[in-house]
Amino acid sequence: MSEPMQILSADDCWQRLRDHEFGRLAYHLTDEVHIVPVNYASDGSRILLRTIEGSKLLGVVMHGDVAFEIDEVDDDSETAWSVVGRGRARILEGRAAVDADNLRLRPWLGDERHVVVEIALTEVSGRQFRLSRPWRQLLPEDH
Amino acid sequence: MSEPMQILSADDCWQRLRDHEFGRLAYHLTDEVHIVPVNYASDGSRILLRTIEGSKLLGVVMHGDVAFEIDEVDDDSETAWSVVGRGRARILEGRAAVDADNLRLRPWLGDERHVVVEIALTEVSGRQFRLSRPWRQLLPEDH
Repeated sequence: MSEPMQILSADDCWQRLRDHEFGRLAYHLTDEVHIVPVNYASDGSRILLRTIEGSKLLGVVMHGDVAFEIDEVDDDSETAWSVVGRGRARILEGRAAVDADNLRLRPWLGDERHVVVEIALTEVSGRQFRLSRPWRQLLPEDH
Repeated sequence: MSEPMQILSADDCWQRLRDHEFGRLAYHLTDEVHIVPVNYASDGSRILLRTIEGSKLLGVVMHGDVAFEIDEVDDDSETAWSVVGRGRARILEGRAAVDADNLRLRPWLGDERHVVVEIALTEVSGRQFRLSRPWRQLLPEDH
């Protein structure tokens, strides 16, 4: 049986960030912490996402400090992994925003979302772990 | 075709929180925002999780304000949903901590995690949405 927890290399973390497109962004809004699922793209050194003018964007502008997470649970093998990054968010404008279109950065919803946010991750860490779900054996029926 | 986005009722949100066991917790730590995947349990009015003494716990103790999120992506039907909650976290002790064992609250890893954290959610919202992935048609190969 593999170790309960394995640390992923930075290269592995970035590969997974490139390979996925759905994550969660945590950010400050005044003195509150918020979290929102987002569609994103990565070119290997940053996270790009689009949004509309709203509370999420406002939070990003007011406090550039954000955290970003992706994960995957494999029920068959009873393993899961996660990659977590922290960094600064800023709004891209002009050419930089247009360039983001070269990535597969499209609105998660089919509506108009015109502001491009770039998150430069300064820390990335990942781990893969075996799931421990003793209740699956303990309970005749999971409820 | 269904609407691009549908709001989930509060009852529906809580049902999904009860039915799932893997989410993400966002919290303050000094002036930073952090996010971590967690195993959790819910009895319909709160989120319970276990942890060890560490940065996550420290963050919860120092700033009770947290956000919590669960989601699911269905690639076949090209839909996804998410439930997001915000509230206060506190450490349970004594009888309250023991009672948490009656839920299917077990460590996500097979190690010892003895501190029980309760998150009383004061706001819960959820949405279900159709995915828009135009690049799937645009690119001969997704890369």
